[in-house]
Amino acid sequence: MSGVPLSAVKYYQREGLLPEGVRSAPNQVEYGEAHVRRVRLIRALLETGGLSIAATKNVIASLDTDSESLAETFSVAQNAMSTPRTAESTPSDASRQRVLALATGQGWAFLPQNPGIDAAARALDGLLAIGFDPPESYLAAYATAAATVAEADLQALDTRDGIDAVAELMVVGTVLGDPLFGGLRRLAHEDATHTLRPTHDTK
Amino acid sequence: MSGVPLSAVKYYQREGLLPEGVRSAPNQVEYGEAHVRRVRLIRALLETGGLSIAATKNVIASLDTDSESLAETFSVAQNAMSTPRTAESTPSDASRQRVLALATGQGWAFLPQNPGIDAAARALDGLLAIGFDPPESYLAAYATAAATVAEADLQALDTRDGIDAVAELMVVGTVLGDPLFGGLRRLAHEDATHTLRPTHDTK
Repeated sequence: MSGVPLSAVKYYQREGLLPEGVRSAPNQVEYGEAHVRRVRLIRALLETGGLSIAATKNVIASLDTDSESLAETFSVAQNAMSTPRTAESTPSDASRQRVLALATGQGWAFLPQNPGIDAAARALDGLLAIGFDPPESYLAAYATAAATVAEADLQALDTRDGIDAVAELMVVGTVLGDPLFGGLRRLAHEDATHTLRPTHDTK
Repeated sequence: MSGVPLSAVKYYQREGLLPEGVRSAPNQVEYGEAHVRRVRLIRALLETGGLSIAATKNVIASLDTDSESLAETFSVAQNAMSTPRTAESTPSDASRQRVLALATGQGWAFLPQNPGIDAAARALDGLLAIGFDPPESYLAAYATAAATVAEADLQALDTRDGIDAVAELMVVGTVLGDPLFGGLRRLAHEDATHTLRPTHDTK
């Protein structure tokens, strides 16, 4: 019913991501609709989102935690999704300050613990490490694009009925919006290579 | 000189990512400028880009391969960066078709093997799996944002002197642009939660 192989469901249970189904007969286990929905969510987070088992546990815990507002649910989910992959190194103060200046320059209101600050600052450190100091126009293009996508993400929440469905899209959309954007960016790169620099060769 | 600990440099060498330095004395090894630059690049790909050792090897091989045009270098790098994480499952045909329609609707020119198609299609499958069928306006916002960022990425290449420096920014910028955007998107999310839905509560 969930479109997920039984072996995967059993793996999720072994890893503590999913409660056991109700045993209705010696060889049969029944799964309710909420259970099926949760299986799909776990698969989406693990496979498409690329989250670790531990990060997936955190995201699910955030959905199961009562939170008071949309902003709080977002915050819990975002922090749960700060995977070890992006948490490996502390970004430089200079890059953090530059991200903060960029975001406040856009008029954005956010809390100092938003995990996006360090994620963007770490990326900036990486660009600086290869000797690329991004001009303000480059950073402004990224910020404009982020605002465009964030507005579409928030509007999408209005299409959902019920608290769980809104929170679920918040979490899954935050995770999957990154590869959706990344995929389209690679297509746009190829197009831009043809159209913006048609005659430019690297040789 | 590279700002990378010697233990990390030795690890890169053991993994075959980096050639040995020139031994100038029994206890001293000399590293040239190209070597130092390569160490920084490997660190950026592994730590900030979150690539595996195998994917990092592929990216470095793509830099060291003579390629004929900017488009070709981009293509080699993009394919090298299709990490196992996003290559785990085959996306549905329906989602692939939808991504292709979105991209061609933007007037983008690209080859059918561009890895962005499957990456975006897989993300779309994940959204559909939780019952969110994105409206065209949602996908169009993502495509517009991707075009904005891709143009800035291409313009940034003009600031680089020399083939190696251009190719290096292509590869590193493709990898690090994703977390840069993702970080800013999380900041924009928090702001949008306050400003677009100031009174909306999930309770």
